[in-house]
Amino acid sequence: MAIRFELLKESKNTEARIGRIHTPHGIIDTPTFMPVGTQATVKAMSPDELKEIGAQIILGNTYHLYIRPGHKLIESFGGLHGFMNWDRPILTDSGGFQVFSLNELRKISEEGVEFKSHLDGSKHFFTPEFVIEIEESLGADIIMAFDECIPYPCEKDYAKESMERTVRWLKRCKKAHKKNDKQALFGIVQGGIFRDLRIESAKMTVDIDLPGYAIGGLSVGEPKEVMNEVLEYTVPLLPKDKPRYLMGVGSPDSIIDGVIRGIDMFDCVLPTRVARNGTVMTSKGKLVVRNAEYARDSLPLDENCDCYACRNFSRAYIRHLIKAGEILGGRLTTIHNLRFLQNLMKNIRDAIKNDKILEFREEFFESYGYNK
Amino acid sequence: MAIRFELLKESKNTEARIGRIHTPHGIIDTPTFMPVGTQATVKAMSPDELKEIGAQIILGNTYHLYIRPGHKLIESFGGLHGFMNWDRPILTDSGGFQVFSLNELRKISEEGVEFKSHLDGSKHFFTPEFVIEIEESLGADIIMAFDECIPYPCEKDYAKESMERTVRWLKRCKKAHKKNDKQALFGIVQGGIFRDLRIESAKMTVDIDLPGYAIGGLSVGEPKEVMNEVLEYTVPLLPKDKPRYLMGVGSPDSIIDGVIRGIDMFDCVLPTRVARNGTVMTSKGKLVVRNAEYARDSLPLDENCDCYACRNFSRAYIRHLIKAGEILGGRLTTIHNLRFLQNLMKNIRDAIKNDKILEFREEFFESYGYNK
Repeated sequence: MAIRFELLKESKNTEARIGRIHTPHGIIDTPTFMPVGTQATVKAMSPDELKEIGAQIILGNTYHLYIRPGHKLIESFGGLHGFMNWDRPILTDSGGFQVFSLNELRKISEEGVEFKSHLDGSKHFFTPEFVIEIEESLGADIIMAFDECIPYPCEKDYAKESMERTVRWLKRCKKAHKKNDKQALFGIVQGGIFRDLRIESAKMTVDIDLPGYAIGGLSVGEPKEVMNEVLEYTVPLLPKDKPRYLMGVGSPDSIIDGVIRGIDMFDCVLPTRVARNGTVMTSKGKLVVRNAEYARDSLPLDENCDCYACRNFSRAYIRHLIKAGEILGGRLTTIHNLRFLQNLMKNIRDAIKNDKILEFREEFFESYGYNK
Repeated sequence: MAIRFELLKESKNTEARIGRIHTPHGIIDTPTFMPVGTQATVKAMSPDELKEIGAQIILGNTYHLYIRPGHKLIESFGGLHGFMNWDRPILTDSGGFQVFSLNELRKISEEGVEFKSHLDGSKHFFTPEFVIEIEESLGADIIMAFDECIPYPCEKDYAKESMERTVRWLKRCKKAHKKNDKQALFGIVQGGIFRDLRIESAKMTVDIDLPGYAIGGLSVGEPKEVMNEVLEYTVPLLPKDKPRYLMGVGSPDSIIDGVIRGIDMFDCVLPTRVARNGTVMTSKGKLVVRNAEYARDSLPLDENCDCYACRNFSRAYIRHLIKAGEILGGRLTTIHNLRFLQNLMKNIRDAIKNDKILEFREEFFESYGYNK
């Protein structure tokens, strides 16, 4: 087995749990947040800085890396780890989400998906087998199966058809995957917001027997309560001894609510994307540091944060950098947001350890301003 | 006196010398190259990284900082040092170059210059007195007098008129400058490419008696031989016991040729600007890493460099980042170019110490490809 999940503790009152994922490139403490490194770099960050903020695993995007610079080139540099000089765990997605969300003109068949490159319009064809080949070249510790991520809202008929195809594609992915000793293939539960489809998908996906499971197709526009509902009836169907990954979710409230419903892994581009535009997460809630009110503010972004940005610079300075379009501005806000999330995950793990995750949720939602 | 120049050694065969400038924020080994931090940040670099590449002094631009975020705001944060969290020496220019080069519509009078902001078109008026006020607010260790930097080519009549006004403005700057104990005011020799004007300017400027002198108005389009000629007849007129600063010059050949003619300080935006576009300086000459030929190149930018980029990443990876528009790409090339220049200055100082500066020039020009 490429990875081993060690379940350390289950929460008494909730589905939350703490654990450790042992991978060929090191250990990941769960619940964990994975910064997204779409194009073989977490935007604005160096590998050293990622270690400094405490990232134990990062995500790479198969679609983008296939398009540029190409998986064969990356393979010749020792995979993504060697190419980008990151020696800790990596997870690659399957490109499914990008193929479906970035491509207006994709054509789906049982065999796979034809799509056009967002760079030059050239035609490409992804099959489950080809995606696994790409992911094997990229060499991540955890690789995601090729799936279809349906939009929200979506007709139930299509959601069912798509979900069943995703299961068939998963079987083909598993069959195609040869590097089981070095890479763990995760299956993805789909089914939109339809309870029976989610349940069916979860059962069929678990039947295929994999080292980990993801829940896809959420946080795509549906209300947060709907996402939480889906998790409530889906997660209990996943085996306790395997990690569970909620794809594309990275807001503090959704992370906490996901953890309480049994999720171990999260990722999202939003914390880094909003950072570059001058919005940061703080212990007192969201702060738009580019706003005029911070022009003369000598406080750090967050008085309770220990990151490089908060130890060294004022809101006024960071606002100036962002307003002036200076690279250091986006670097500092990115460092801060990623450190904020690492600290959040650490606090979440501590709360689960002390059987206080519900109390932690209350306090966090109050101080962050979610209850307003 | 705010600064003290310690002349350590004069070259036997050339005008080159090594020294140390003692400032309120530390020592600068000369000859030195000063990275440019236009908007209170050296583009793409953090203060920690600037220290890591060995920068002993950086430059700030008075015009830009006056326009945004404003000198009074910066003053309230403890000046530029406090605002940007840089505890080593800083030099601020006078805004003269920007007022004249960025503003088509400036109006020059004996009193000063009216110009429009490049940001919002608002009208502003710089006088020597006001520029000193701004520079006192910014609080740099070395501040430049307000001068007019004429273009190349330029009519001799205008060059003379402008040079004489610059001398009168320098007297007003000196009179207005109150923080002599904390800041050293440098005068700027002008006069275009006219020998008699340069000589006259140098004599009048030195007569005003200042802690340091700059040569301005060069590297503005004239041939390199012309610049070297101007230095040959101008620099000997400057006192040996004061630092000499050649403004806006940062290509390796011009730095070496300037050092040989007695220059101690250099600055230029080019090394950082070309870096962000994917061009780096190496021990074997200029290398355009964004070119296709480096797509699969596993070598570092420069095999003889000890910077973070060269210790950790391949040309192929850095090319990918630059092509993909990723921030880390420009960060790595910037780190490299600035480290390259710091190493160059160190090698220059060693060569002067060993009375080998002319041999060093030969070898460097040969390996860098200047002799081709």
